[in-house]
Amino acid sequence: MEQPGEIKKVSMAVIKRLPKYYQHLGNLLRDNVERVSSQELSKILGFTASQIRQDLNNFGEFGQQGYGYNVSQLYTEISKILGLNTSHKMVIIGAGNLGQALAKYTGFGIYGFDIIAIFDTNPNLVGREIRDIPIYPVEDMEYFINENDVDIAVLTIPKDKTKKIVKAISKTCIRGIWNFTPVEIKINENIIVENVHLIDSLFTLSYHINEGMLQERLLKQKRKIFPSP
Amino acid sequence: MEQPGEIKKVSMAVIKRLPKYYQHLGNLLRDNVERVSSQELSKILGFTASQIRQDLNNFGEFGQQGYGYNVSQLYTEISKILGLNTSHKMVIIGAGNLGQALAKYTGFGIYGFDIIAIFDTNPNLVGREIRDIPIYPVEDMEYFINENDVDIAVLTIPKDKTKKIVKAISKTCIRGIWNFTPVEIKINENIIVENVHLIDSLFTLSYHINEGMLQERLLKQKRKIFPSP
Repeated sequence: MEQPGEIKKVSMAVIKRLPKYYQHLGNLLRDNVERVSSQELSKILGFTASQIRQDLNNFGEFGQQGYGYNVSQLYTEISKILGLNTSHKMVIIGAGNLGQALAKYTGFGIYGFDIIAIFDTNPNLVGREIRDIPIYPVEDMEYFINENDVDIAVLTIPKDKTKKIVKAISKTCIRGIWNFTPVEIKINENIIVENVHLIDSLFTLSYHINEGMLQERLLKQKRKIFPSP
Repeated sequence: MEQPGEIKKVSMAVIKRLPKYYQHLGNLLRDNVERVSSQELSKILGFTASQIRQDLNNFGEFGQQGYGYNVSQLYTEISKILGLNTSHKMVIIGAGNLGQALAKYTGFGIYGFDIIAIFDTNPNLVGREIRDIPIYPVEDMEYFINENDVDIAVLTIPKDKTKKIVKAISKTCIRGIWNFTPVEIKINENIIVENVHLIDSLFTLSYHINEGMLQERLLKQKRKIFPSP
């Protein structure tokens, strides 16, 4: 039985859907919509209404039969669950193409994720700024993270440098790593790792394209053997 | 029962693991390793040996008891399954920060994904090149895709332009969309969509960090109520 004060374990599938709820409720809020039914959410989000009710039940009793959900209340609750009610300090490690692109993107700040520094080994980059964010030498990284209570390290470094950097970060106050390298990071369990493995994603796309092409070919073969009358 | 010539449906979880197998087998191949056991793969990949055997059984009988897997054969087979035995033509739509970063990255080419053009509406960008890849006006996109048999469109455009672009692409020979916009794309089922939703990924990280902090706080409260003797 669940103990009061215990944290209910929520499945990864539900967690992965929460950002969608959050973003669409934000849109509704900006459009001054006060309440929304699971049916209406279902139309926008593409999940079934019963799945939406089940998902949201995981986090408490938000809805009211015949009334629907209070948009503002639900938005605030989900924002708390996602930890978006407080701001997060981020640093980007690796000022290469991807690191620079992420630094230039202003969309993370909207949700309270503030990039406050970038670290790199390249002396041609160190000392420069990207959108007012300074690039510091990687030697200063650990000190900076601890001194500034940085929550999240964004890793956009080459594969072969990952192990060393991860070892250095593991001794800091960092709470999460947003990992854009293809390396599987092993670190103490207090630090959360979230991976964006671009090559894996591209391979998955390629798999499905390939599968679709195989199916087309089989269909054509069948048509040859059993031509339509 | 499975029919000969039918394509076996493989679960998404297995497909998502295939790129990992592929990349690690590639490393073994480059190190001239000829065979590998499921136990050895398990140590590198972190999945259990029995899961590895189960995964690979989905695609045929690759292993031999007491011998292990033939690295080169398994690598070739997985490359075929992932559709990496043929090259793919890609275009990037949207030459903003992320589009430019992806265009500059040479890692996709290694696996046969060739970026052959970039499209944008910005007259200051059109006519330029990124790593020898030309930036063309978006008006030429549909013609170019059909004329050059492009397989994959990489979407790095702003949210509000996505619908229009997707509508235009849907009339071309494109087979897959690699979607970096936060928009859920609805398109005819012949075109595969693979999403890289960065904000969702960041929110998931934030959720886990927040959950970890809540647990720490609860633990501290418990210690106060029931202090260690």
